[in-house]
Amino acid sequence: MSSPESRGFFYPRTATGQASLLPPPPWYYSGDLLTVEYRTEPGRVAALLPAPLRPAGQDPDAVALIWADWQSCGASREELLDPVRAQYKEAFVVVRCEFGGRTYSRCAFIWVDKDFALLRGIHQGYPKKLGSIHMTRPHPLPQAAPALAPGGRFGATLAAADRRLAQAVITLTEPSPVNGFVNAHPMAHHRWLPAIDGPGDAHAELIESGAAEFAAGATFAAEVDEITLFDSPSEELAALPVREVIGGYYRQVGVVWNGGATLWAG
Amino acid sequence: MSSPESRGFFYPRTATGQASLLPPPPWYYSGDLLTVEYRTEPGRVAALLPAPLRPAGQDPDAVALIWADWQSCGASREELLDPVRAQYKEAFVVVRCEFGGRTYSRCAFIWVDKDFALLRGIHQGYPKKLGSIHMTRPHPLPQAAPALAPGGRFGATLAAADRRLAQAVITLTEPSPVNGFVNAHPMAHHRWLPAIDGPGDAHAELIESGAAEFAAGATFAAEVDEITLFDSPSEELAALPVREVIGGYYRQVGVVWNGGATLWAG
Amino acid sequence: MSSPESRGFFYPRTATGQASLLPPPPWYYSGDLLTVEYRTEPGRVAALLPAPLRPAGQDPDAVALIWADWQSCGASREELLDPVRAQYKEAFVVVRCEFGGRTYSRCAFIWVDKDFALLRGIHQGYPKKLGSIHMTRPHPLPQAAPALAPGGRFGATLAAADRRLAQAVITLTEPSPVNGFVNAHPMAHHRWLPAIDGPGDAHAELIESGAAEFAAGATFAAEVDEITLFDSPSEELAALPVREVIGGYYRQVGVVWNGGATLWAG
Amino acid sequence: MSSPESRGFFYPRTATGQASLLPPPPWYYSGDLLTVEYRTEPGRVAALLPAPLRPAGQDPDAVALIWADWQSCGASREELLDPVRAQYKEAFVVVRCEFGGRTYSRCAFIWVDKDFALLRGIHQGYPKKLGSIHMTRPHPLPQAAPALAPGGRFGATLAAADRRLAQAVITLTEPSPVNGFVNAHPMAHHRWLPAIDGPGDAHAELIESGAAEFAAGATFAAEVDEITLFDSPSEELAALPVREVIGGYYRQVGVVWNGGATLWAG
Repeated sequence: MSSPESRGFFYPRTATGQASLLPPPPWYYSGDLLTVEYRTEPGRVAALLPAPLRPAGQDPDAVALIWADWQSCGASREELLDPVRAQYKEAFVVVRCEFGGRTYSRCAFIWVDKDFALLRGIHQGYPKKLGSIHMTRPHPLPQAAPALAPGGRFGATLAAADRRLAQAVITLTEPSPVNGFVNAHPMAHHRWLPAIDGPGDAHAELIESGAAEFAAGATFAAEVDEITLFDSPSEELAALPVREVIGGYYRQVGVVWNGGATLWAG
Repeated sequence: MSSPESRGFFYPRTATGQASLLPPPPWYYSGDLLTVEYRTEPGRVAALLPAPLRPAGQDPDAVALIWADWQSCGASREELLDPVRAQYKEAFVVVRCEFGGRTYSRCAFIWVDKDFALLRGIHQGYPKKLGSIHMTRPHPLPQAAPALAPGGRFGATLAAADRRLAQAVITLTEPSPVNGFVNAHPMAHHRWLPAIDGPGDAHAELIESGAAEFAAGATFAAEVDEITLFDSPSEELAALPVREVIGGYYRQVGVVWNGGATLWAG
Repeated sequence: MSSPESRGFFYPRTATGQASLLPPPPWYYSGDLLTVEYRTEPGRVAALLPAPLRPAGQDPDAVALIWADWQSCGASREELLDPVRAQYKEAFVVVRCEFGGRTYSRCAFIWVDKDFALLRGIHQGYPKKLGSIHMTRPHPLPQAAPALAPGGRFGATLAAADRRLAQAVITLTEPSPVNGFVNAHPMAHHRWLPAIDGPGDAHAELIESGAAEFAAGATFAAEVDEITLFDSPSEELAALPVREVIGGYYRQVGVVWNGGATLWAG
Repeated sequence: MSSPESRGFFYPRTATGQASLLPPPPWYYSGDLLTVEYRTEPGRVAALLPAPLRPAGQDPDAVALIWADWQSCGASREELLDPVRAQYKEAFVVVRCEFGGRTYSRCAFIWVDKDFALLRGIHQGYPKKLGSIHMTRPHPLPQAAPALAPGGRFGATLAAADRRLAQAVITLTEPSPVNGFVNAHPMAHHRWLPAIDGPGDAHAELIESGAAEFAAGATFAAEVDEITLFDSPSEELAALPVREVIGGYYRQVGVVWNGGATLWAG
């Protein structure tokens, strides 16, 4: 039932594809990332990894908490001129794992503020919820903004279901060639679709994906002035408490995403 | 890869399931429905039905445009006391189709205003986007509300991506045993998951589902004073223009949804 | 400068008045109120009362924390059919005070979720901010709703600036002739407009106002199962901690508001 | 009634001032402005000017439609690290007028997306409503963003009450020393507070204000590819139709606002 007469990459599918919430990949992104890396209590990351994933051999308890302020579009770039359909922010938790002898990054929790970003997540295996995400923005005029330069101070906050879940403050220290090490591998994500008629999954697949193209712009290392995680009855972010701060980063990036590959299918 | 050690009905899955955006079914709903039924241009509904679905034999161009104001929860009912996680509104377009000699209802387009409702849609095959949905509410005190009684006048509006997509006004006329005929069958929906590595679908399934329990409360027929559909570059609702109004309804309902059955798997 | 040629009750004012965010009073409201009354630490209420207001002679530390789910409109009632302009929710803190030998109620803090409600507050002297407010709704169908009857359990939450500020849970116990005593007097509010050219106020006025018409519908007393106030760097709600719960209420009301009177002008 | 014991620049006022929605001026802003200037039908601007304001002697029908993406704060700069309290967007219509032999700019309509911006408007005489405002953002990485350079193409949209009200697209052409001429004068605004007890105003004042400090960054002239105004039953923006496009601009600015002066008091 490949429905050749219906177009639209994902829901809804129609004869023209005009109404589809998503164009087909490739998807294009320009944006800023604010990253805080830390080590959590031993074993907490492992507890988030379903079989057959295994904890990373090195520094298995490392966590990256990342905020991103994105503009994104499909190949037509039409969303860029109707920016309510192009702009979104997200905050997400990345850990590392191993599968088949390789190290992968993996998003454990993620919140976004637009529907197109949420539906992309279903395709890419990101466990997306809606949230309210804010990041201090650098600006060339300093009256109410930090510079994107050493000394610049940036805050980032996350809320969902009317509760604040996380907040961080960093101060840029110096240019950096890297943006941390936790979110530096291809992503290994599960794509699940629960069965319609009972327990278990109609579809279960482990996929890997990464950037088809990646361009790094200005990148700074940062001191982490604050990182606070808050409890919530409907979240588990606070189950990854900060035991030791590793470091902070701020990076501007451009990304093209164009699919991935199946690692394992159930 | 059934991941027996991870719980959570859908994303994200963890060892405890606490963070899952959705509890497992059954799901419980109490709410109000405002329905407008009309006939659109011949063939427009058929153009929305991917094979092997066929147009309904009778009145194939009938469309129901439905607004709903819901409170919903899982078996624990805990969402009801943290109502930001229980309340949502939606507006959706229902048409009819035939498969295997039976008539089904089918949601062609739908907008909701909460993430948990959007993710439920992925499970149930509803092609959900986020929107802003409003319905006049009846109230026992008449200072700023219609009564849920003949003469009560109700408006309903839908917007998405900062554009108004539809609005309707109805006036209740008399109690009615039915709530229209378009949304009166089991739903036949596609559950699709696009392939991660190129065109086509990793999962394609036609499912049927309906209410495991259904209780109808007050139900009124209504005159349709207005129904207006607006154009949008990212929608196709206006491709179902109103050629002939059939009627309007207002109904209070209680529903339990507990899964469905596969009709066809690709 | 009465600008007789410009119409519109408040901003913006134009020749036709069409764009005004508010029609002139009277304003009409139908809605539900969920109230929790408690006593806070002695003196905390007094500290919120600017001179010449004085603490209430009886039970001066009593506080009412009230959630309201409203539909409202002007005399044309046109907002009711475009309900995005009619519906709003609010949460507010009411205390009592004395002036000129009379007891008044006074709103110390209030959050609403629509602009028209916020601007009304400027007129009425309510110190309104935007917030996210939710209340469990009763419904005749019980699948996912309490009944408006003894045993019905209702939650209410308030958030602002991405932080939860308050939450409460009540269980209805029996019909009640009253809705508490803290919010039972005319309101005494300050209307301030800071000077444009330095410290002090260009306008400072103490006004009293109340309902021009008031109709009470179903009213229930309730047990207070939970009331929690959360701290925030930009709020002072937590400075009114709960020392002793007095009681809870749920009431449906219809209100007409049509101005007030000046008690004192600076 | 200067209430020396209560602090807080505007609502709510408390003993500490912590909960005030606004710190006292000066207020600091860094942000980007996208401007489209055009001439509307003769007389339409004049119809928006209450006496004693008169139309500008030169080019009296010129209109600037401006979108702005701001970060703002008070003297403590604390909002910058909790950016949900610092960031907002706005779209506004500026016309010119004359008073006392001088030419002023004047905001006729304005929509913002945060409460602190709305309340500032009450102080400054901006007739603010809430809206949903979006502007394409430039970014150093081009994957999904225009460059802030000739050829860069930017869209801007405005919606309120679930209706799109305006949209524009511009293409930067060359650096420009100016950002248009309509919004280039001190602002002449009315500060009104309607009487609490009947028609007329308790306070009516014409004020002038402008930037206490102003820093212009990158500024570009632009071709206006599109400017569309949409009708709405609760707005009058469409009463200023585009008769002749003058030009477009994109500018980065830093501003300090620190009060104004009374021109006329009723």
